Amino acid sequence: MITITAFKWVPRFAQGQVRDFRVRWMLEELGLPYQVRLVDAPTMASPGYRAQQPFGQVPVLTDDDGTKVFETGAILLHLAQKHGKLIPADPAARVKTLSWLFAALNSVEPFVMQLILLDIFQKDEEVKRRARPGAVEWVEKRFGEVQTALGARDYLAGEFSIADMMMAGVVNILKHTDIPGKFPALDAYRARCLSRSAYQRALAAQIKDFEGHSAADMKWPQPVK
Amino acid sequence: MITITAFKWVPRFAQGQVRDFRVRWMLEELGLPYQVRLVDAPTMASPGYRAQQPFGQVPVLTDDDGTKVFETGAILLHLAQKHGKLIPADPAARVKTLSWLFAALNSVEPFVMQLILLDIFQKDEEVKRRARPGAVEWVEKRFGEVQTALGARDYLAGEFSIADMMMAGVVNILKHTDIPGKFPALDAYRARCLSRSAYQRALAAQIKDFEGHSAADMKWPQPVK
Repeated sequence: MITITAFKWVPRFAQGQVRDFRVRWMLEELGLPYQVRLVDAPTMASPGYRAQQPFGQVPVLTDDDGTKVFETGAILLHLAQKHGKLIPADPAARVKTLSWLFAALNSVEPFVMQLILLDIFQKDEEVKRRARPGAVEWVEKRFGEVQTALGARDYLAGEFSIADMMMAGVVNILKHTDIPGKFPALDAYRARCLSRSAYQRALAAQIKDFEGHSAADMKWPQPVK
Repeated sequence: MITITAFKWVPRFAQGQVRDFRVRWMLEELGLPYQVRLVDAPTMASPGYRAQQPFGQVPVLTDDDGTKVFETGAILLHLAQKHGKLIPADPAARVKTLSWLFAALNSVEPFVMQLILLDIFQKDEEVKRRARPGAVEWVEKRFGEVQTALGARDYLAGEFSIADMMMAGVVNILKHTDIPGKFPALDAYRARCLSRSAYQRALAAQIKDFEGHSAADMKWPQPVK
């Protein structure tokens, strides 16, 4: 059976966000059964896990034939190509889907993560205060560009595809801020993607796996400085 | 004939770096002739260009059948799959190549770019001074992880592939710093990839296109604040 790795537990703000979520969503879209191997910090730091995931992150997908795949972009593309779903068969639409898949991960998400690093992980209040407006400006530039490109269409490249799963997921990282709401058509697109029943099933499955676990189960290392 | 878009001119530090470079390198590896359409800032901001490249960036690839592709990751993958080169035929090696291609773009480059944004684009000296150590720490964490994963191998996923072009290109963004030198095996890997004759031809071609152009030809907008 297909297996993915996922955290034993994450804080509430990260629920529906951790990267295993994108893969759960994809597997629910494909209707493929899967099992979850919950991992903690020491496991992810171990050489055995690093041999499967060089950055000690989740998820790793072990496909039903034993193939290991890491990076959510690669996992979604692998599954889409293997099953011939969530990626168009038409060559031109397929290439457009590829372009948007990479755009979500390399032209949009890095700016979203830059803001998240400031908001959630930056401990220097002076850096946070001074750097935040510039970081927001970058995110808003990108969100505006995606919204313009989307235009009046429902999805980025024809039918709903892995590109939309990735882009909607990236925009959704900032759901706790007022930024998505500044781009009504993009926000409606995010809601359209997230209203899918497969998304709802994936979210319920992720939250269920956290049940009975707490921060202590992750065995996160204490800060060294 | 295949056409790509590229800047008319960039400052010296950006030569061999701008994203069209990765595509030139790929086309040289494949031995495919191509022509270059040089663009300036107003062109990239125009609706016509944005319809091809939603973020107003370079490059856009127009393939010989008219197919338009944006995002260097998508372009390299499209060309590799179309021509059956620079990506392994073996399914397991192919998936590993995909994983590393996405890793370069989503797990490593965002941290490299965060440092570049600080070093080159951040005007607030206080932010630069306070945020730089943390940004360097992230990059070094990732470079160390890639080096460990590489181990004693020459390339990330078997034969030299698009994953190596992307990862070596990402590491090379920081060639002006002392960071790559702190990871000798990774730095040797970067040198191994960049010593390829196709890379050298691509670099010469990019620099040649800048000849006779200057900053003025880019018609960059004046800062509005």
